[in-house]
Amino acid sequence: MTSVPSTLTLKKLNINTYYAPIIYLHENSHICRSEGFVAEARVEVVLRDKSLIATLHTVRSNILHCNEAGLSTYAWNFFEAKPGDVITVSHPKPLDSLSYIRSKVYGNTLKHDQINAIITDLVAGRLSDIQIAMFLAGSVAQNLNQTEVLALTRAMVDNGKKLSWDAPLVVDKHCVGGLPGNRTTLIVVPIVAAFGLMMPKTSSRAITSPAGTADTMEIFSPVNLNYEQIKKVVTQENACIVWGGNISLSPADDLLIRVERSMNLDGEGQLVASVLSKKISSGSNHLVIDIPVGPTAKVRNIQQAELIKTLLESTASAFSIKTTVIISDGTQPVGRGIGPALEARDVLAVLTNDKNAPLDLKDRALTLAGHILEFSSSVQPGTGKAIAQTLLESGKAFEKFLAICIAQGGSPSIHIPTAKHTYTVAANQSGKIIDIDNRKIATIAKLAGAPVYKASGVELLAKINTEVKKSDPLFVVYSESRGALNYAITYLTQGHNIMTIGK
Amino acid sequence: MTSVPSTLTLKKLNINTYYAPIIYLHENSHICRSEGFVAEARVEVVLRDKSLIATLHTVRSNILHCNEAGLSTYAWNFFEAKPGDVITVSHPKPLDSLSYIRSKVYGNTLKHDQINAIITDLVAGRLSDIQIAMFLAGSVAQNLNQTEVLALTRAMVDNGKKLSWDAPLVVDKHCVGGLPGNRTTLIVVPIVAAFGLMMPKTSSRAITSPAGTADTMEIFSPVNLNYEQIKKVVTQENACIVWGGNISLSPADDLLIRVERSMNLDGEGQLVASVLSKKISSGSNHLVIDIPVGPTAKVRNIQQAELIKTLLESTASAFSIKTTVIISDGTQPVGRGIGPALEARDVLAVLTNDKNAPLDLKDRALTLAGHILEFSSSVQPGTGKAIAQTLLESGKAFEKFLAICIAQGGSPSIHIPTAKHTYTVAANQSGKIIDIDNRKIATIAKLAGAPVYKASGVELLAKINTEVKKSDPLFVVYSESRGALNYAITYLTQGHNIMTIGK
Repeated sequence: MTSVPSTLTLKKLNINTYYAPIIYLHENSHICRSEGFVAEARVEVVLRDKSLIATLHTVRSNILHCNEAGLSTYAWNFFEAKPGDVITVSHPKPLDSLSYIRSKVYGNTLKHDQINAIITDLVAGRLSDIQIAMFLAGSVAQNLNQTEVLALTRAMVDNGKKLSWDAPLVVDKHCVGGLPGNRTTLIVVPIVAAFGLMMPKTSSRAITSPAGTADTMEIFSPVNLNYEQIKKVVTQENACIVWGGNISLSPADDLLIRVERSMNLDGEGQLVASVLSKKISSGSNHLVIDIPVGPTAKVRNIQQAELIKTLLESTASAFSIKTTVIISDGTQPVGRGIGPALEARDVLAVLTNDKNAPLDLKDRALTLAGHILEFSSSVQPGTGKAIAQTLLESGKAFEKFLAICIAQGGSPSIHIPTAKHTYTVAANQSGKIIDIDNRKIATIAKLAGAPVYKASGVELLAKINTEVKKSDPLFVVYSESRGALNYAITYLTQGHNIMTIGK
Repeated sequence: MTSVPSTLTLKKLNINTYYAPIIYLHENSHICRSEGFVAEARVEVVLRDKSLIATLHTVRSNILHCNEAGLSTYAWNFFEAKPGDVITVSHPKPLDSLSYIRSKVYGNTLKHDQINAIITDLVAGRLSDIQIAMFLAGSVAQNLNQTEVLALTRAMVDNGKKLSWDAPLVVDKHCVGGLPGNRTTLIVVPIVAAFGLMMPKTSSRAITSPAGTADTMEIFSPVNLNYEQIKKVVTQENACIVWGGNISLSPADDLLIRVERSMNLDGEGQLVASVLSKKISSGSNHLVIDIPVGPTAKVRNIQQAELIKTLLESTASAFSIKTTVIISDGTQPVGRGIGPALEARDVLAVLTNDKNAPLDLKDRALTLAGHILEFSSSVQPGTGKAIAQTLLESGKAFEKFLAICIAQGGSPSIHIPTAKHTYTVAANQSGKIIDIDNRKIATIAKLAGAPVYKASGVELLAKINTEVKKSDPLFVVYSESRGALNYAITYLTQGHNIMTIGK
């Protein structure tokens, strides 16, 4: 009996589809014909000891020969493939996880094993965008209960690497997001480390915002460290501020966020599992979480914030993580700069006690650092913030910040780039600023090029309650390229209400 | 002020992604750099007077130059593009429909305008797979109410072409699906047309099944007719049996089904809108719908069937369509053959009154034809089936069938292909067949090559209640290729319980 030939030779096509695993086959290849594979089929690809399920895109041109296969960059890197490698391609086995996803959509409560099967298949690259989207929509529509959130968090932690530290007290902080310019981490970490607590901070790059903590930190030092390098920095300085994407902590989180973001669909249960899975994986056991609330922040009202707070506390407690959740004002951006370099300038001003440093950024950082310090048995409740302030204003925090930067491979001389092209928006009437739209300010910074172009972004010259006269400058758009600046200007001329001036 | 250059020259890449619109750009193209586009961004593509939103896949090889762009086959055909055409690419405007989809996921009831906005964006190619999946999951999880089902049906009809016929009584039939071999349409249509009613039947090709009505009809005649050709056939013969995919009736339905099928997620509301939007668009005003119920049919229990029946009747009535809904036995396949050619053989046997013709297929066809004939004012209630039987057994139906085939461009001499390679599965014990798994039988037929290879499939030699002896043949797998036959055999050896033999 002849067997079905199913091997193909890899050709490097260099097509980047972000996280989507795609396989390219010639539509006349023996595999497409014998297996009946047509475009958009899900097929199992095996190379050496690894396998994943890819979506098939068929080719009818000379990009590929009939005995060749191409892979999208994500799939190529997943396999650590080389041109000429031989892969096998077949129909994938049915996935149990699909029936669990369907079950969730229909309103059933999932057991731990079922949620774990979904997350295992997700991380192994076996779920399509459509299947992931249905899981997320089902989770939001049918509300994950507390037990499901716990199971989801555990599954996300278990399906990834885990850091561990040789210290009884390992602290971390997280902000639920949505506030442009809220770059407290770069101030909190050195204060806490200067005090002597261990704070191995892994942060994300921007996903939909004009800057992530990792993007801003990159102005000062490399952030793209591997596990051994991180260990060394933390052993030496008690802390680090690095990009977490390099060390595979809760990879499920990144895969889910990628699908969520195209719909801004971020249910409370998902959010809690997302935050905690990263923190648990990074090995911390004491955590301060800030939930800014405002009409254009991620969390829009106090009821939703309280719901997230309760769910965070109960889930963290099941993992023996001590948590302080703070609900804060999220009505406007923090500091002046929005965009990696402009935010770095604010951070540096606070750390160096510059007299023009933005006071709101400083105060937020001191509040968070204070709560973290109070996890220490040597700090009396209610005294943390004052201790944090002393560490900052004495210059000890800045000294620690420089030491961390140097340990991460940065230069001792700090250089913050500035953008060539600017455009200033002025008040069209006199009055008091009564509202700033976080989302629109972020959009302008992104249109101007942030975070890809580090010096691009927005500098706010007025905040809520500032009294302005007609023609006073309200904010400046910075851009590294004329083209991107024009893009932001086009948006500005479309009549979006970015700052509201009242009487 | 220099403006952002954003035009690119099209190169034909011939990459088929089924319905997914993809644009390929070099990652160093000025557009990617100036607009900050990265892989998986959603970008608006404009060519002449058409636009769609495509997903960006970036290329870093010599497939494309920096000033070139490629499009997936679907997008290429959408634009009727030619190599060298110049497109413009930009950030898409925010879609209101996304907030309606989100709203549905969160459990709100959508208004007609909102559902229409979603379907308009869907048909215009502006929604991604993730967004469509979330709409479907939200619709299932939150249950579309009767008003929403009506609005969805209307939106699907309004966003497509509509046929109209010069007859007061235009009839149609539909089967909710899931029963392999249930090819009644090819018998019902000629009976009804021979009686004198107008039945312009548009059918689908197989999506997840081993054969669609259009695939089986293609054994007898061409089915790929355009609008003018269909008009001509129907004017001449009162009926046609053609593929509906050519004439853009309810294109939203095809786009939704494509996303549904990867999860088998087919909510009642969605199902009703899907069936009725096609029928309303095809211009029929009297409709018989068959809902087979069985543990391995699409509809699993009588409660679900009753729910669909009620929703079908109320929605159809809002469109002034007279409907008869039949709930039938769906415990096993219909007839003997499964796969285009094997089903065609059953159909031909019934039409030619062959003494070995499968009686279950004949009886089902007569029941449906009978109900349709009773829409005519000249047919007394309860007498339709007998009239249908006379038309069939007198040879008038076969005569009409041949006339329809010839009108559609078929040859008067019928040739049904047979497959070279066969494999017979025998009973492993004596007893009575008590169960046949519809889904597994379909899987075997598909593994053997159906519907792509017309003569591939399964022939059932035993049905429920057949008494068999050990080693009696139960079914035969037919395949046009040795490789595909092996694929089916491998599945068979994995111990799937396809036919259950009881004592």
